Amino acid sequence: MPAFIFDLDGTLVDTVYQHVVTWHTALRKNGFDLPMWRIHRKIGMSGRLLMSALELELGRSIGEDTAKALENAHTEEMKKMRDSVQVFAGVGDLLETLRKADVPYAIASSGSKKDIGAFLEMLDLPDGVPAVTQEDAKNAKPDPQLFLKAAEKLGVKAEDAIVVGDSVWDMLAARRAHCLGVGLLTGGYAESEMTAAGAYRVYPEPADLRARLHEVGVNIKEN
Amino acid sequence: MPAFIFDLDGTLVDTVYQHVVTWHTALRKNGFDLPMWRIHRKIGMSGRLLMSALELELGRSIGEDTAKALENAHTEEMKKMRDSVQVFAGVGDLLETLRKADVPYAIASSGSKKDIGAFLEMLDLPDGVPAVTQEDAKNAKPDPQLFLKAAEKLGVKAEDAIVVGDSVWDMLAARRAHCLGVGLLTGGYAESEMTAAGAYRVYPEPADLRARLHEVGVNIKEN
Repeated sequence: MPAFIFDLDGTLVDTVYQHVVTWHTALRKNGFDLPMWRIHRKIGMSGRLLMSALELELGRSIGEDTAKALENAHTEEMKKMRDSVQVFAGVGDLLETLRKADVPYAIASSGSKKDIGAFLEMLDLPDGVPAVTQEDAKNAKPDPQLFLKAAEKLGVKAEDAIVVGDSVWDMLAARRAHCLGVGLLTGGYAESEMTAAGAYRVYPEPADLRARLHEVGVNIKEN
Repeated sequence: MPAFIFDLDGTLVDTVYQHVVTWHTALRKNGFDLPMWRIHRKIGMSGRLLMSALELELGRSIGEDTAKALENAHTEEMKKMRDSVQVFAGVGDLLETLRKADVPYAIASSGSKKDIGAFLEMLDLPDGVPAVTQEDAKNAKPDPQLFLKAAEKLGVKAEDAIVVGDSVWDMLAARRAHCLGVGLLTGGYAESEMTAAGAYRVYPEPADLRARLHEVGVNIKEN
């Protein structure tokens, strides 16, 4: 039986578009202009890699102090949008189905404990579900470390883990960790982008994955 | 020489992501929950078609009063985000290049005059550039009426017009109007989605179209 590793932002909680507009605001407050769609395609990267990607787009370097200011501004702006964040429909059912079938699962997020705490709480996870964050890996996604750490905490080989994510960075990190990548459309990527990034299957939302668990090799006996 | 018909929101001004989060807020305020990515993929439709699409997603009907309340709430929320809206880099250069080369162009938006007025002003268009809005067509995009009307105002046959847009609805309406569709990535669609919807070429942003005008058959002599 495989195990599951779930990305959090954009996969279990609907936060990608808030991240886009809040990064846009944080950047503008610090004097950087970047179109929204370019920010969108970078959400889900680790903060440090995001800064390097922004430097490339902007054609100038972002110092350590500015990087810190940007991250703080983003955190502040996200707090203002907290009320708009919802858990995707079907997440509770999906996780409960896995629990009943004794299929272990973990959460693996590029975010910091501080930033994702409120979202984790919204999931109301049972005791013992590992949640791996930025603090647990030197390099976050698309580096494979986060997923390898999550597999380790689950006590399974990475090869036996199914990574569920909404961004191409999840799929890239899954591939590098030798996990099976499964994509969702909840992050606003096209199915073709997720497939090109290595997704074995792409489902619209968590509820659709729940309905098709057999397609990823999980034998759930419906009752 | 062909003529150009430009979509406005998401094509010349960076507004798609603001539309996504403000529709999300407007919907929630009226008791409707819809994930952000599903709203994203509907931006650029006419308001009336959007309501029908929402009804389909929600599995229940939206009355005339509620539709009106939703549209008003969306307009109000967009006003709050006005400061975050910017014209895409390169738009001024693109339009100026066309003007100098005597290539006529028009703006065609599914929005109402009231909603898009401020964005049109940001473009600082020369006198005589036709701007076709919701009020000029019984059915907005993806119905071809808006683009046909714009071609008429430009005094060209629709077959000689190049429609530049950021959403699949622009490409569908262009195809139905027998215009040539050219896509931009500024709306957050993947290139593959734009191509599948009929885009003859897809460029990242207006500046890239400006640099490759020859690819759409426009002979600009650089000086």
